[in-house]
Amino acid sequence: MRLRVISTGGTIDKVYFDAASSYDVGDPQVEPLFKEANVTFEYVIESVTRKDSLAMTDADRALIRERVEVSPEKLILITHGTDTMTETAAALATIKDKVIVFTGSMLPARFRTSDALFNLGCAVGALQVLPAGIYIAMNGQIAPAHTVRKNRAESRFEPKA
Amino acid sequence: MRLRVISTGGTIDKVYFDAASSYDVGDPQVEPLFKEANVTFEYVIESVTRKDSLAMTDADRALIRERVEVSPEKLILITHGTDTMTETAAALATIKDKVIVFTGSMLPARFRTSDALFNLGCAVGALQVLPAGIYIAMNGQIAPAHTVRKNRAESRFEPKA
Amino acid sequence: MRLRVISTGGTIDKVYFDAASSYDVGDPQVEPLFKEANVTFEYVIESVTRKDSLAMTDADRALIRERVEVSPEKLILITHGTDTMTETAAALATIKDKVIVFTGSMLPARFRTSDALFNLGCAVGALQVLPAGIYIAMNGQIAPAHTVRKNRAESRFEPKA
Amino acid sequence: MRLRVISTGGTIDKVYFDAASSYDVGDPQVEPLFKEANVTFEYVIESVTRKDSLAMTDADRALIRERVEVSPEKLILITHGTDTMTETAAALATIKDKVIVFTGSMLPARFRTSDALFNLGCAVGALQVLPAGIYIAMNGQIAPAHTVRKNRAESRFEPKA
Repeated sequence: MRLRVISTGGTIDKVYFDAASSYDVGDPQVEPLFKEANVTFEYVIESVTRKDSLAMTDADRALIRERVEVSPEKLILITHGTDTMTETAAALATIKDKVIVFTGSMLPARFRTSDALFNLGCAVGALQVLPAGIYIAMNGQIAPAHTVRKNRAESRFEPKA
Repeated sequence: MRLRVISTGGTIDKVYFDAASSYDVGDPQVEPLFKEANVTFEYVIESVTRKDSLAMTDADRALIRERVEVSPEKLILITHGTDTMTETAAALATIKDKVIVFTGSMLPARFRTSDALFNLGCAVGALQVLPAGIYIAMNGQIAPAHTVRKNRAESRFEPKA
Repeated sequence: MRLRVISTGGTIDKVYFDAASSYDVGDPQVEPLFKEANVTFEYVIESVTRKDSLAMTDADRALIRERVEVSPEKLILITHGTDTMTETAAALATIKDKVIVFTGSMLPARFRTSDALFNLGCAVGALQVLPAGIYIAMNGQIAPAHTVRKNRAESRFEPKA
Repeated sequence: MRLRVISTGGTIDKVYFDAASSYDVGDPQVEPLFKEANVTFEYVIESVTRKDSLAMTDADRALIRERVEVSPEKLILITHGTDTMTETAAALATIKDKVIVFTGSMLPARFRTSDALFNLGCAVGALQVLPAGIYIAMNGQIAPAHTVRKNRAESRFEPKA
């Protein structure tokens, strides 16, 4: 198994810079988390944007789409902020020949308590079994991306009404 | 989605009791880890044995098999020590109508650095997508249980030669 | 031994709110950290401000001073943002009959890797041994507050030139 | 400030080796914990024994005593298992010209939740302020070593009756 990780930023990659007393999106956390999990599959990690998903533009989404299209790997894991994860997924909707799973986290991977490691595992577990399509893996559930939405008040994803 | 977790012990549940200065198998860690991941599916957790997998007997395996067979849930996640995970999986081989995924961890879930949370996520992600069968989810890879073995020197699972 | 903790905010108490995708100063982290350390001394925790120390005003400092002055406890631990810790300490300089130790952290207490727990321990260890005065406990060193400054580029405290 | 750390083993240094499914005393954890705390004082770490404190012999205690006596540093931090910490302290009782602080932890430093980092901080904070003598720093309290004992049932230190 070989997969490509496209890192776009979001809460999962948030770090804290004390000197500026500001928080910002840092290096992709997928690399250290995969090492912590001692994964044995092959992977490449590509950092495409480093943004809060609320800051993501159409140009960013076009770039992400292009990177997915030219990827020689069929299995694509996209780490992304949760606020506009479904919008970026929609921008990829016409890609037909790849298995694309989005995930992210509600709390930064660097926190002692975080959903990041579980979510990454969940996405990886599903990615290698799913048929081609575009999915979201959050809160332990795998769903076609167009069928879910973020419930911001509850900090979780749920089926669209 | 609703799944049954059958907890059998193993490293993932190892705790440390200072008074006795000994390490032992504690309560199932699945419960706090699922809460940390803020999962939204339904689940029940059943603690069947609390053993190092090297200590597991035929009677233990018969009991695990019975608990799987009587489970009303079709999706079964079994947390298990890694040393004899494949043997317990073999004891379930003739169960045909359920999706059964084994997982565990090389380092206790209570450690700051551990593969437990990722492995659980990986198992949950695959479980809901896989056809009926018996699988092992370790090191980020999902495989039919009879096709893999633990490489003890390398602390990972790999395909059987 | 009995001590009063005056919590004023700062990085040590930083939390992350996903819905707003913003970081902010949360509840005093001293309480859960003292529980984690299983401390056996008596203490009260008083939350006076919840601010980044760069946002702290003269009025805030007057309030902190008043709270210290009226404290029936002689031993005072003040958790504070690092950027203006020495300025708040200077505002207390004429208080003569109490042992006052400031501490904080460069990384939030909620991070997997943080100096928060060590710094709190260091402050508590020194507080019960020091003579009356105003001190800063950062980077494992206890110093009279007016003798040190934050080196922002290096993210540590050092003796004033 | 310059201090010598004498590491003797104990729970604070406990690690977990999966291949053997056993727990054992590993490398001194003081080094990574000091780095996590970003300490700025000078220190040397000397690993003298790697033992559960229940396994410590008179010969071990004689060795620890010798290492303290020949230390050029006046400030000595000894990490030690909690069960016989007071006995090793008693073996050093006639050393008059050094400040010696014992600490350790009830839960391994590698656990997500542990008293190790706080206890180390507490010992370091007190060490640089205390007069010559032999002390124990546990549960946030500094006490002359001969005045306390471990309450095993409660997993904490307390004054001798």
